[in-house]
Amino acid sequence: MIADIDGNASVSNATGKPLTKRGEATRTRLLEAAEVVFAEQGYHEASIVKITERAGIGLGTFYLYFDSKQSIFEALVIDLNRRVRHSMAEAMAGTSDRIAAERAGFAGFFRFTAQHPALYRVVREAEFVSPEVLKLHYTRIVEGYEAGLARAKESGDIDRRLDPEVTAWALMGMGELIGMRFLLWERDENGLPPAQLDERVFTAMTQMIDNALAPRREGNHDD
Amino acid sequence: MIADIDGNASVSNATGKPLTKRGEATRTRLLEAAEVVFAEQGYHEASIVKITERAGIGLGTFYLYFDSKQSIFEALVIDLNRRVRHSMAEAMAGTSDRIAAERAGFAGFFRFTAQHPALYRVVREAEFVSPEVLKLHYTRIVEGYEAGLARAKESGDIDRRLDPEVTAWALMGMGELIGMRFLLWERDENGLPPAQLDERVFTAMTQMIDNALAPRREGNHDD
Repeated sequence: MIADIDGNASVSNATGKPLTKRGEATRTRLLEAAEVVFAEQGYHEASIVKITERAGIGLGTFYLYFDSKQSIFEALVIDLNRRVRHSMAEAMAGTSDRIAAERAGFAGFFRFTAQHPALYRVVREAEFVSPEVLKLHYTRIVEGYEAGLARAKESGDIDRRLDPEVTAWALMGMGELIGMRFLLWERDENGLPPAQLDERVFTAMTQMIDNALAPRREGNHDD
Repeated sequence: MIADIDGNASVSNATGKPLTKRGEATRTRLLEAAEVVFAEQGYHEASIVKITERAGIGLGTFYLYFDSKQSIFEALVIDLNRRVRHSMAEAMAGTSDRIAAERAGFAGFFRFTAQHPALYRVVREAEFVSPEVLKLHYTRIVEGYEAGLARAKESGDIDRRLDPEVTAWALMGMGELIGMRFLLWERDENGLPPAQLDERVFTAMTQMIDNALAPRREGNHDD
C-alpha cells in the first residue's frame, strides 16, 4: 500500500488525517532518518527501531505516521521523487528554450543526486520492496518531461520528428546511468560523491542531448 | 569473490580446475536454474537447494562448481552479461556504418532482454548482493561500446565532437530504461514480456540516436 500517492498534496498521518505543522516536522524527521538508514543498511537490515532511534523519536510516535517499515520506505521514495523533481524544476525555471531547460534540468538532477546518494539505492531497492512505487517514481519524472517535450515539439524548439514519450524515457535513462557512473562511483576517501558532475562529463552529455533534440531545418540534415 | 572474472575465458570449477565438456553442461544447467530461481524469488528467498532441485542436480555436485549462493549469483550476472554482449555483437556484425551498427546492437539487446527478463532483476539486485559484479556488468558493456564509438569518431562516422566514454554510458542508459518501460512493464496475461520492442518505440528511439550521433557537416548545424 502506498501511503501518500501524491507527494505534492498535503501529507497525512497513518490513519489519513491531515498533519499539523508540528506533525509535518516530525514526519520529515522520520523520513530524513529513514533515508540514512535505508541507504546505509538496505531494506532488509533496516528496522523501524533503527529509524526512530536515529530520528530521536519514540516508537509509539512512529505509528502515528506510518504503519510499517514498508510504508515508510514507500513514503521515502515518494518524498525523494517529489524533491528531485522540485530540484529539476527549480533549475529549469527561467530558461529561454527547451534545450537550455534540458541542460538546467540535468544539472538540477545531478546536484540532487550528489546531495542524496540514497536516491539510487532506495529507488533500485524499491524494485524488490514495492514495484508499484518504483513505477510511480519513474512515471512521475517522465510525465513532466514528456509534457515539456510535447510543447517544445509544437513550438519548433526541438526536432519535430521526435516522440516525446520515448524521448523522455531515453533522456531519463541517460541521466540515470551518467549519474551512477560519474557521481556515485566516484566516491572520495570519506565515501562521499563529488558535489557536482565533472564539467567535462556534463559538457559531453549536453553535447549529445543538443544533437538529439535540436530542430532540423528542412533539407539541411543528413538523412 | 567473483567466481569467473572473465566470462569469455574457459570456465572452471569451484577449485579453479578447467571443466570437461560434461562439466560445462552441468554448470550451464545450474546457471539456467539459478536464472529462473533468482528472477522469480529474488536473492534472499532463493537457496542453493531450490536451484539444485530445479536443475535436477545433487547438492553435493553443486559444490563442485560453486562454493556459495553468492558465488553462483555472481557467475550468473557474468554469464548473462557475456550472453547479452554476444547477442548485441551478433546483431551488429556486417552492418555498414556506426549508426546502423547502433540500431542493430539495440535490437540485439532488446531481443535478449525479452527472452531473459531475469537480466534486469538480477543485475539490479547485484547492487545489493555484489556491487563489484554490478560494476563489472556495466563496465564491460560500455568498454565495447566506447571502443566502437572512438573508431567511428576517427573515421567520421559519427559527430567528431562527441565523447566516446560519456556517449557510451548515455546510450546504455537509454537502452536500459526503454527496455524497462516498453518490454518489462508490458507483460501479457501470462506475465511474459513482448518478444520484441514495439516498432513505434524502436523507431522513435533510433531517430533520437541518429540525431545524437550523426556527423555534422561544417557550418551546417545550428550552433
